[in-house]
Amino acid sequence: MRRDDLDTPALVVDLDVMEDNIRRLQSYCDEHGIRLRPHIKTHKVPAIAHMQIRAGARGIACQKLGEAEVFAATGFDDIQIPYNIVGRPKLERLARLMRQCHLTVAADSLMTVRGLAWAAAQAGQPLDVIIELEGDIERAGVHTPEEAVTLARAIDEAPELRYRGVMIYPSNPESRPRLRAFLDALAAAGLPAEIVSGGGTGAAYHSHEIPELTEIRVGTYVYNDWSTVKHGWCTLEQCAQKVICTVVSRPTPDRAIIDGGSKTFSSDGGLPMGHIIEYPEAAIYRMNEEHGYVDISRCARKPEVGERVTVIPNHACAVSNLHDVIYGLRGDRVEVIWPILARGKVQ
Amino acid sequence: MRRDDLDTPALVVDLDVMEDNIRRLQSYCDEHGIRLRPHIKTHKVPAIAHMQIRAGARGIACQKLGEAEVFAATGFDDIQIPYNIVGRPKLERLARLMRQCHLTVAADSLMTVRGLAWAAAQAGQPLDVIIELEGDIERAGVHTPEEAVTLARAIDEAPELRYRGVMIYPSNPESRPRLRAFLDALAAAGLPAEIVSGGGTGAAYHSHEIPELTEIRVGTYVYNDWSTVKHGWCTLEQCAQKVICTVVSRPTPDRAIIDGGSKTFSSDGGLPMGHIIEYPEAAIYRMNEEHGYVDISRCARKPEVGERVTVIPNHACAVSNLHDVIYGLRGDRVEVIWPILARGKVQ
Repeated sequence: MRRDDLDTPALVVDLDVMEDNIRRLQSYCDEHGIRLRPHIKTHKVPAIAHMQIRAGARGIACQKLGEAEVFAATGFDDIQIPYNIVGRPKLERLARLMRQCHLTVAADSLMTVRGLAWAAAQAGQPLDVIIELEGDIERAGVHTPEEAVTLARAIDEAPELRYRGVMIYPSNPESRPRLRAFLDALAAAGLPAEIVSGGGTGAAYHSHEIPELTEIRVGTYVYNDWSTVKHGWCTLEQCAQKVICTVVSRPTPDRAIIDGGSKTFSSDGGLPMGHIIEYPEAAIYRMNEEHGYVDISRCARKPEVGERVTVIPNHACAVSNLHDVIYGLRGDRVEVIWPILARGKVQ
Repeated sequence: MRRDDLDTPALVVDLDVMEDNIRRLQSYCDEHGIRLRPHIKTHKVPAIAHMQIRAGARGIACQKLGEAEVFAATGFDDIQIPYNIVGRPKLERLARLMRQCHLTVAADSLMTVRGLAWAAAQAGQPLDVIIELEGDIERAGVHTPEEAVTLARAIDEAPELRYRGVMIYPSNPESRPRLRAFLDALAAAGLPAEIVSGGGTGAAYHSHEIPELTEIRVGTYVYNDWSTVKHGWCTLEQCAQKVICTVVSRPTPDRAIIDGGSKTFSSDGGLPMGHIIEYPEAAIYRMNEEHGYVDISRCARKPEVGERVTVIPNHACAVSNLHDVIYGLRGDRVEVIWPILARGKVQ
């Protein structure tokens, strides 16, 4: 089976490019003595995570318990969940999962910590906990060093839990003063962080600028995407994930419609909504679920109905979540077809 | 099993509200002698489409061949695909599907028409074809009445195909002059449209203002969503689809984080990104894949970590595509659990 045999829209990964992406960040981490913990949210494919581990990564990160369950069932024994696990149904699942692999989970509130202690008691074994610190994007995470100390103490004093350290996202170099304030307060309270986990594809190659980091959780680096290119974090040639689409309509000289829309690509990211390799002057300017609107006014040669085009998506992780399989290409040959086993794990 | 037993995020549908939505539009269509052809893209659940048929709808619309395959396999015998089917792999699938149910497909180019004729020849039976006309959203569809006549003639002259009429989306009342120009040109050429298919939830209850319409394809009316409310097309009480989420973090007095983000809701639609029923003053102002950021500064009472909230999503169809199951609630009781069988059919 070759690339041109695939029906469209087809989610594909260029294996050579992906393998190079995996090697490159691993080499950087090895060189700087930073543990690389790939975040599987970008691909959601156990086989790819096994490639990352074989390249030298130690452990993985999963954002949801449902993803961790898939990866525990497919051979991973060191999983971090950098997310507050809250509510009885999930805590029961967590207790079961603790018997399957080594877990580290994050917490940013006493409410979360109490639930984790309950789960660990159910499992009959201690649970490693790290504190989520608020990063520059002001998402979850404790807001002040004082809160971090209070929480670390609560974890440390809970017999079912082991206080291991902290996590932050993203770990951009600009975050270092903020991170230091947290770490200093914890150390001063006699609760130094053994694990200092950073994250983010943009921050990845700057991790050595924050010597406090012991590990980084990075997802997108494995594929890269059009947003990564736009941010200057990679080159176009380092984008491994692509979607092959077909032009299904050419209503006017300046407009083409492709058979991939928001159901294929998501609506994530800004304009243009991805990049068409064969028509770099074209711009995807709108999407409905099954329609991608392409402005081809600046194209010297214009794509015809039936022509296939290759799109680098805006947001690789969102795309992986929308497809059941990804085709691994070696050149033009389909070398492997991977089911995206952890797709759609909203819980 | 009751509503509070569901783990979160949980996609639910209020069955009473949905049944009322189905009845209301069906009554309107029956009253005005317009055929209602529900578009299944909103729910992607065969059992719900069967409810729509039992209420009086005749036939369904599926946007992708992969959806039509699921619905043909689950008992539907009259399926319209208002989309250009292009490329050998899909045409082979189309030919097979023609043997399973009655199909009507749309075309807006000679290239598409030639492929449809090839598929019909493979199937050994004639295929009904309608012409897609460009609507006000300037998506696909033939651009001028002259092009429509040329295409209708090509369909009419192809021995494998049956020219049946036209489709347009959306069929807002403002589109009527445009639609009339197409219809008049076709009639003048001796190719009058027997089927005049309109569409769109916003346009649905205005269909009688376009007496030329013989049928409407409508999807969102079955669930409604926050966009429908914002457009004034329904009330808040008429929203049947909801997502139950849990507050997993309260980093500051004014910010709550819920466990549903763009992987649960999509990024479709504007701000606020959905509506929280229990906290109408709250605003979901940003989403990452697993995080919904909620501004609770205007809430008198503020949600605590662990509290469950009910969100009306921005875009019902996109949400259905992100979940494997939907829980049908009768009041607080889980009456049915439906697998979303046609989810993720990107091809």
